[in-house]
Amino acid sequence: MRVKSSENFLPLTSILSRKGERKNVTSKEIEMSILVVGSVAFDSVKTPFGMVDNALGGSGTYFSVSASYFTKVKLVAVVGKDFPQKHIALLKKHHIDLEGLKQTEGKTFRWKGQYIKDLNQAETLDTQLNVFASFKPEIPDSYKDSEFVFLANIDPVLQLDVLRQVKRPKLVACDTMNYWITGKKPELKKTLAKVDILIINDAELRLLAEENNMVKAAKKVLSWGPSSLVIKRGEYGVLYIGKNEMFVLPALPLEKVCDPTGAGDTFAGGFMGALAKAGKITNSSIRKAIVYGSVMASYNIEDFSLNRLKSLTQADISKRYAQFKRLTSF
Amino acid sequence: MRVKSSENFLPLTSILSRKGERKNVTSKEIEMSILVVGSVAFDSVKTPFGMVDNALGGSGTYFSVSASYFTKVKLVAVVGKDFPQKHIALLKKHHIDLEGLKQTEGKTFRWKGQYIKDLNQAETLDTQLNVFASFKPEIPDSYKDSEFVFLANIDPVLQLDVLRQVKRPKLVACDTMNYWITGKKPELKKTLAKVDILIINDAELRLLAEENNMVKAAKKVLSWGPSSLVIKRGEYGVLYIGKNEMFVLPALPLEKVCDPTGAGDTFAGGFMGALAKAGKITNSSIRKAIVYGSVMASYNIEDFSLNRLKSLTQADISKRYAQFKRLTSF
Repeated sequence: MRVKSSENFLPLTSILSRKGERKNVTSKEIEMSILVVGSVAFDSVKTPFGMVDNALGGSGTYFSVSASYFTKVKLVAVVGKDFPQKHIALLKKHHIDLEGLKQTEGKTFRWKGQYIKDLNQAETLDTQLNVFASFKPEIPDSYKDSEFVFLANIDPVLQLDVLRQVKRPKLVACDTMNYWITGKKPELKKTLAKVDILIINDAELRLLAEENNMVKAAKKVLSWGPSSLVIKRGEYGVLYIGKNEMFVLPALPLEKVCDPTGAGDTFAGGFMGALAKAGKITNSSIRKAIVYGSVMASYNIEDFSLNRLKSLTQADISKRYAQFKRLTSF
Repeated sequence: MRVKSSENFLPLTSILSRKGERKNVTSKEIEMSILVVGSVAFDSVKTPFGMVDNALGGSGTYFSVSASYFTKVKLVAVVGKDFPQKHIALLKKHHIDLEGLKQTEGKTFRWKGQYIKDLNQAETLDTQLNVFASFKPEIPDSYKDSEFVFLANIDPVLQLDVLRQVKRPKLVACDTMNYWITGKKPELKKTLAKVDILIINDAELRLLAEENNMVKAAKKVLSWGPSSLVIKRGEYGVLYIGKNEMFVLPALPLEKVCDPTGAGDTFAGGFMGALAKAGKITNSSIRKAIVYGSVMASYNIEDFSLNRLKSLTQADISKRYAQFKRLTSF
């Protein structure tokens, strides 16, 4: 986690502590923006609670909309000529900067999957990469001094290339998946060496570290570079392991999980968004950010696509944050 | 949860609140005792970390020793003539009342099992019920007004028979297992109608309720009688669901789990022990008791048999309670 030198983006703590003098800091002055590089897609999903066809999806989409409730988001992704204006309008309504969203000849990335008995595990039925197949993220100049960077689940070679284009971010987090862990592990390890927080699910971490025990697996991956790991455990919540820090947040037990698609990216959006809003990275702000991430994910899985996520209010978020507090306090 | 009328066993709150007058209450006066009916056995266990042969085990044993760190325990169980004096001495050292521990002709119950890859799931290699096959719990008169009763995992018909022998306990909790759920469900439901808290693992709850979703499954079982469920989730900790209350405590992430045998009964012992020590049953005391149960279980799995559990100190318990607090606070 590197502190940027640019005056405009000094972390909150530095601004407050300079000569003990308390500047009149407006939220504008200290607002930190997040750059996210990921996919924008059409998802067709079937679960025990229903189905949707060609609904808005993609890691970049879920992340951006989730994070937009906390801070300014700059999206880098690619869509085809078939991407409708109404989806653009939705992203704009959430004040997501779309300078980095390229629209090129061809069709938008499409994914088709289903969750049958186990809502923790998607079964992919069809993947059409389309314009995403030749995605080479180009970071617009206006994005390059983003304080926070989230590398969604894309080729680790592209993830590293993004980091080469940006100027010293304060915090870099990334996601990955089985496909890259088995197919491009050396490249992934190079990316991880430049990443602060790896956000990964438990099965993927076991695969990556080749170790079943979570604590041992985390320690192994920490030795490759990241300063901490956020381990997603589906219905069991989140386990955070840093070099000298451990935090566990259970998931909210829900009677109805309509569609878990995008839960991980929605979590990451809330997590990074809350950290950016807090303006400082401490053990305490990280713990709270994990709760905010879980709040956003818990709403997202209540409906298909971004149907629930797109219409949240700050009151909804505060209410569920309080629910997590009651759920875990003793 | 029924309040006993006997003067000697008035709950702490009643003693303190009578006419606002604060009596000088010694811990002796308000100490509540726990009756446990379960097994005392010899276990042969193999895990990735080693093995033991004919080591002390059994639900009644784990429960009693765990609860003994909090309050007085009265054990009802049966052993054979092969049960050695050193194990009796260990139980006595923990001030466990052994009037209800019968020693009869024959051999002590023996269980042999192993945990290969998944430390959450034991594979039974051999079961020799021996004297346990004809176990008919007889509650000594001196046990009959125990405030707390724990019915460990035995035939639900016997569990119900125990409840017929005792006088209005303040709190009754019970455990069960797949074997009884599939083989004696009507009898089990009769027992559950008389039980306050069902302590059960997640897979067993799904089987019992014939429902995959935990919240729905819990609601279904609550409708049969219990006022709350403590759902054990192995390495993911504990989920508590009452009629209008929900609490989740994650397990302590450990690098080494030596032997999970007895973890559930050790949890139950700490849980009931802490409740008995608190002297009152409130949402707050239940939450704390779940933490104490988890503290005891987390120590127990660090070594085979009762090797770690038998040598704990109050300082050990307080230290790990604080660890749980740090692990979950935000």
